[in-house]
Amino acid sequence: MSDPLVRRAEDVEYEDVGAADGMAKGVLVGEDQGAPNLAIRRFTLEPGGSVPKHTNEIEHEQHVLAGKYTVGIEGEEYEVEAGDSLHIPAGAVHWYRNDGDEEGAFLCAVPAGDDAIELVEE
Amino acid sequence: MSDPLVRRAEDVEYEDVGAADGMAKGVLVGEDQGAPNLAIRRFTLEPGGSVPKHTNEIEHEQHVLAGKYTVGIEGEEYEVEAGDSLHIPAGAVHWYRNDGDEEGAFLCAVPAGDDAIELVEE
Repeated sequence: MSDPLVRRAEDVEYEDVGAADGMAKGVLVGEDQGAPNLAIRRFTLEPGGSVPKHTNEIEHEQHVLAGKYTVGIEGEEYEVEAGDSLHIPAGAVHWYRNDGDEEGAFLCAVPAGDDAIELVEE
Repeated sequence: MSDPLVRRAEDVEYEDVGAADGMAKGVLVGEDQGAPNLAIRRFTLEPGGSVPKHTNEIEHEQHVLAGKYTVGIEGEEYEVEAGDSLHIPAGAVHWYRNDGDEEGAFLCAVPAGDDAIELVEE
Protein backbone atom coordinates (compact mmCIF):
# COMPACT_ATOMS: atom_id res chain seq x y z
CA MET A 1 0.00 0.00 0.00
CA SER A 2 1.31 3.49 -0.80
CA ASP A 3 1.50 5.95 2.09
CA PRO A 4 -1.48 8.09 3.05
CA LEU A 5 -0.92 11.79 2.47
CA VAL A 6 -2.43 15.02 3.71
CA ARG A 7 -1.10 17.91 1.67
CA ARG A 8 -1.71 21.50 2.75
CA ALA A 9 -2.63 24.20 0.25
CA GLU A 10 0.56 26.17 0.98
CA ASP A 11 2.76 23.18 0.20
CA VAL A 12 1.59 22.90 -3.40
CA GLU A 13 3.95 24.37 -5.99
CA TYR A 14 2.48 26.11 -8.99
CA GLU A 15 4.07 26.59 -12.38
CA ASP A 16 2.93 28.53 -15.42
CA VAL A 17 1.28 26.47 -18.13
CA GLY A 18 3.45 26.86 -21.20
CA ALA A 19 1.04 27.38 -24.06
CA ALA A 20 -1.32 29.46 -21.93
CA ASP A 21 -1.44 33.11 -20.96
CA GLY A 22 -2.13 33.57 -17.24
CA MET A 23 -2.77 29.96 -16.25
CA ALA A 24 -0.87 28.20 -13.46
CA LYS A 25 -0.98 24.55 -12.48
CA GLY A 26 -0.27 22.77 -9.19
CA VAL A 27 -0.40 19.02 -8.73
CA LEU A 28 -2.30 18.37 -5.50
CA VAL A 29 -1.98 14.59 -5.47
CA GLY A 30 -0.39 12.61 -8.27
CA GLU A 31 2.29 10.09 -9.10
CA ASP A 32 4.93 11.90 -7.02
CA GLN A 33 2.58 11.74 -4.04
CA GLY A 34 2.00 7.99 -4.45
CA ALA A 35 -1.33 8.01 -6.28
CA PRO A 36 -1.24 5.03 -8.65
CA ASN A 37 -4.27 5.50 -10.92
CA LEU A 38 -5.17 9.15 -11.15
CA ALA A 39 -4.09 12.67 -10.28
CA ILE A 40 -5.86 15.78 -9.03
CA ARG A 41 -4.43 19.14 -10.03
CA ARG A 42 -5.53 22.72 -9.27
CA PHE A 43 -5.38 25.37 -11.97
CA THR A 44 -5.77 29.11 -11.70
CA LEU A 45 -6.70 31.44 -14.55
CA GLU A 46 -6.08 35.10 -13.94
CA PRO A 47 -8.40 37.88 -15.16
CA GLY A 48 -7.69 38.41 -18.84
CA GLY A 49 -5.95 35.04 -19.06
CA SER A 50 -6.61 32.48 -21.76
CA VAL A 51 -5.60 29.08 -23.07
CA PRO A 52 -5.73 28.48 -26.83
CA LYS A 53 -7.61 25.65 -28.52
CA HIS A 54 -5.93 22.35 -27.79
CA THR A 55 -6.52 18.66 -27.29
CA ASN A 56 -5.26 16.25 -24.65
CA GLU A 57 -4.82 12.53 -24.99
CA ILE A 58 -6.55 11.98 -21.66
CA GLU A 59 -9.96 12.95 -20.33
CA HIS A 60 -10.48 15.77 -17.81
CA GLU A 61 -13.05 15.77 -15.04
CA GLN A 62 -13.16 19.27 -13.61
CA HIS A 63 -14.84 21.09 -10.74
CA VAL A 64 -14.88 24.89 -10.63
CA LEU A 65 -13.58 26.17 -7.29
CA ALA A 66 -13.70 29.95 -7.73
CA GLY A 67 -14.48 32.74 -10.17
CA LYS A 68 -16.42 32.79 -13.42
CA TYR A 69 -14.80 32.07 -16.76
CA THR A 70 -15.45 30.64 -20.19
CA VAL A 71 -14.69 27.10 -21.30
CA GLY A 72 -15.04 26.14 -24.92
CA ILE A 73 -15.44 22.50 -25.86
CA GLU A 74 -15.79 21.29 -29.44
CA GLY A 75 -17.27 24.49 -30.84
CA GLU A 76 -19.50 25.46 -27.93
CA GLU A 77 -18.66 27.96 -25.17
CA TYR A 78 -19.92 27.65 -21.60
CA GLU A 79 -19.82 30.23 -18.82
CA VAL A 80 -18.90 28.34 -15.68
CA GLU A 81 -18.68 29.34 -12.03
CA ALA A 82 -17.84 27.85 -8.65
CA GLY A 83 -19.79 24.61 -8.11
CA ASP A 84 -20.05 23.64 -11.76
CA SER A 85 -18.44 20.43 -13.04
CA LEU A 86 -17.22 19.46 -16.49
CA HIS A 87 -16.32 16.39 -18.46
CA ILE A 88 -13.90 17.14 -21.29
CA PRO A 89 -13.49 13.89 -23.22
CA ALA A 90 -10.06 12.74 -24.36
CA GLY A 91 -9.34 14.26 -27.76
CA ALA A 92 -11.96 17.03 -27.50
CA VAL A 93 -10.81 20.46 -28.67
CA HIS A 94 -11.13 22.84 -25.74
CA TRP A 95 -10.02 26.30 -24.59
CA TYR A 96 -10.38 28.73 -21.69
CA ARG A 97 -10.83 32.48 -21.32
CA ASN A 98 -11.35 34.62 -18.24
CA ASP A 99 -13.22 37.80 -19.20
CA GLY A 100 -14.03 38.56 -15.56
CA ASP A 101 -12.11 40.54 -12.98
CA GLU A 102 -11.76 37.67 -10.50
CA GLU A 103 -9.24 34.81 -10.62
CA GLY A 104 -10.78 31.55 -11.77
CA ALA A 105 -9.72 28.29 -10.15
CA PHE A 106 -10.64 24.71 -10.87
CA LEU A 107 -9.74 21.22 -9.88
CA CYS A 108 -8.93 18.84 -12.73
CA ALA A 109 -8.79 15.06 -12.26
CA VAL A 110 -7.03 12.95 -14.88
CA PRO A 111 -6.05 9.29 -15.25
CA ALA A 112 -2.41 8.55 -14.38
CA GLY A 113 0.06 8.29 -17.23
CA ASP A 114 1.46 10.33 -20.02
CA ASP A 115 -0.49 13.01 -21.79
CA ALA A 116 0.19 14.74 -25.06
CA ILE A 117 -1.08 18.28 -25.56
CA GLU A 118 -1.62 19.41 -29.11
CA LEU A 119 -2.42 22.97 -30.06
CA VAL A 120 -5.13 23.37 -32.68
CA GLU A 121 -4.46 25.76 -35.57
CA GLU A 122 -7.15 28.41 -35.81
CA MET B 1 -15.59 10.28 -28.20
CA SER B 2 -18.11 10.62 -25.36
CA ASP B 3 -20.05 13.88 -25.17
CA PRO B 4 -18.66 16.91 -23.36
CA LEU B 5 -20.67 17.86 -20.29
CA VAL B 6 -21.11 20.94 -18.15
CA ARG B 7 -23.07 20.06 -15.05
CA ARG B 8 -24.43 22.77 -12.77
CA ALA B 9 -24.25 22.46 -8.99
CA GLU B 10 -28.04 22.48 -8.65
CA ASP B 11 -28.42 19.54 -11.04
CA VAL B 12 -26.42 17.15 -8.87
CA GLU B 13 -28.49 14.74 -6.78
CA TYR B 14 -27.28 13.86 -3.32
CA GLU B 15 -28.04 10.75 -1.34
CA ASP B 16 -27.21 9.77 2.22
CA VAL B 17 -24.21 7.50 2.59
CA GLY B 18 -25.51 4.31 4.18
CA ALA B 19 -22.98 3.42 6.85
CA ALA B 20 -22.39 7.06 7.78
CA ASP B 21 -24.16 9.49 10.06
CA GLY B 22 -24.66 12.88 8.39
CA MET B 23 -22.74 12.30 5.19
CA ALA B 24 -24.26 12.83 1.72
CA LYS B 25 -22.77 12.00 -1.66
CA GLY B 26 -23.36 13.45 -5.11
CA VAL B 27 -21.69 12.17 -8.26
CA LEU B 28 -20.54 15.25 -10.21
CA VAL B 29 -19.14 13.44 -13.24
CA GLY B 30 -18.96 9.67 -13.51
CA GLU B 31 -19.93 6.69 -15.58
CA ASP B 32 -23.50 7.93 -16.06
CA GLN B 33 -22.12 11.23 -17.37
CA GLY B 34 -19.86 9.49 -19.89
CA ALA B 35 -16.55 9.56 -18.00
CA PRO B 36 -14.71 6.37 -18.95
CA ASN B 37 -11.78 6.17 -16.52
CA LEU B 38 -12.58 8.03 -13.35
CA ALA B 39 -15.30 9.79 -11.39
CA ILE B 40 -15.45 12.94 -9.28
CA ARG B 41 -17.94 13.04 -6.46
CA ARG B 42 -18.79 15.71 -3.86
CA PHE B 43 -19.46 14.74 -0.26
CA THR B 44 -20.86 16.80 2.59
CA LEU B 45 -20.41 16.03 6.28
CA GLU B 46 -22.74 17.88 8.61
CA PRO B 47 -21.70 19.21 12.02
CA GLY B 48 -21.66 16.28 14.42
CA GLY B 49 -21.60 13.83 11.53
CA SER B 50 -19.23 10.89 11.27
CA VAL B 51 -18.28 7.91 9.16
CA PRO B 52 -17.01 4.78 10.93
CA LYS B 53 -13.71 3.06 10.18
CA HIS B 54 -13.84 1.38 6.80
CA THR B 55 -11.81 0.39 3.78
CA ASN B 56 -12.45 0.79 0.08
CA GLU B 57 -11.07 -1.33 -2.72
CA ILE B 58 -10.14 1.77 -4.68
CA GLU B 59 -7.95 4.77 -3.89
CA HIS B 60 -9.34 8.21 -3.04
CA GLU B 61 -7.82 11.52 -4.06
CA GLN B 62 -9.63 14.24 -2.16
CA HIS B 63 -9.69 18.02 -2.03
CA VAL B 64 -11.38 19.82 0.86
CA LEU B 65 -13.87 22.40 -0.42
CA ALA B 66 -15.36 23.80 2.81
CA GLY B 67 -15.35 23.51 6.58
CA LYS B 68 -12.93 21.86 8.97
CA TYR B 69 -13.21 18.25 10.00
CA THR B 70 -11.18 15.24 11.06
CA VAL B 71 -9.98 12.47 8.78
CA GLY B 72 -8.39 9.37 10.24
CA ILE B 73 -6.17 7.21 8.05
CA GLU B 74 -4.46 4.07 9.30
CA GLY B 75 -4.27 5.06 12.95
CA GLU B 76 -3.51 8.76 12.56
CA GLU B 77 -6.01 11.63 12.68
CA TYR B 78 -5.64 14.82 10.64
CA GLU B 79 -7.56 18.09 10.97
CA VAL B 80 -8.27 19.25 7.45
CA GLU B 81 -9.77 22.42 6.04
CA ALA B 82 -10.64 24.01 2.71
CA GLY B 83 -7.63 23.85 0.35
CA ASP B 84 -6.09 20.69 1.80
CA SER B 85 -5.74 17.56 -0.32
CA LEU B 86 -5.54 13.90 0.65
CA HIS B 87 -4.47 10.60 -0.80
CA ILE B 88 -6.20 7.67 0.87
CA PRO B 89 -4.63 4.54 -0.62
CA ALA B 90 -6.80 1.59 -1.66
CA GLY B 91 -7.29 -0.67 1.33
CA ALA B 92 -6.34 1.95 3.95
CA VAL B 93 -8.58 2.04 7.02
CA HIS B 94 -10.08 5.52 7.22
CA TRP B 95 -12.85 7.47 8.95
CA TYR B 96 -14.33 10.96 9.23
CA ARG B 97 -15.71 13.12 12.03
CA ASN B 98 -16.97 16.70 12.01
CA ASP B 99 -16.57 18.20 15.48
CA GLY B 100 -17.07 21.73 14.13
CA ASP B 101 -20.25 23.75 13.69
CA GLU B 102 -19.84 24.23 9.94
CA GLU B 103 -20.69 21.75 7.19
CA GLY B 104 -17.63 20.06 5.72
CA ALA B 105 -17.47 19.41 1.98
CA PHE B 106 -14.89 17.66 -0.15
CA LEU B 107 -14.34 16.46 -3.65
CA CYS B 108 -13.29 12.82 -4.02
CA ALA B 109 -11.84 11.44 -7.25
CA VAL B 110 -11.78 7.68 -7.79
CA PRO B 111 -10.90 5.32 -10.64
CA ALA B 112 -13.92 4.04 -12.57
CA GLY B 113 -15.22 0.62 -11.70
CA ASP B 114 -16.70 -1.29 -8.82
CA ASP B 115 -15.79 -0.56 -5.25
CA ALA B 116 -16.37 -2.64 -2.16
CA ILE B 117 -16.74 -0.87 1.18
CA GLU B 118 -15.94 -2.88 4.25
CA LEU B 119 -16.61 -1.66 7.77
CA VAL B 120 -13.82 -2.31 10.26
CA GLU B 121 -14.77 -3.78 13.63
CA GLU B 122 -13.62 -1.55 16.49
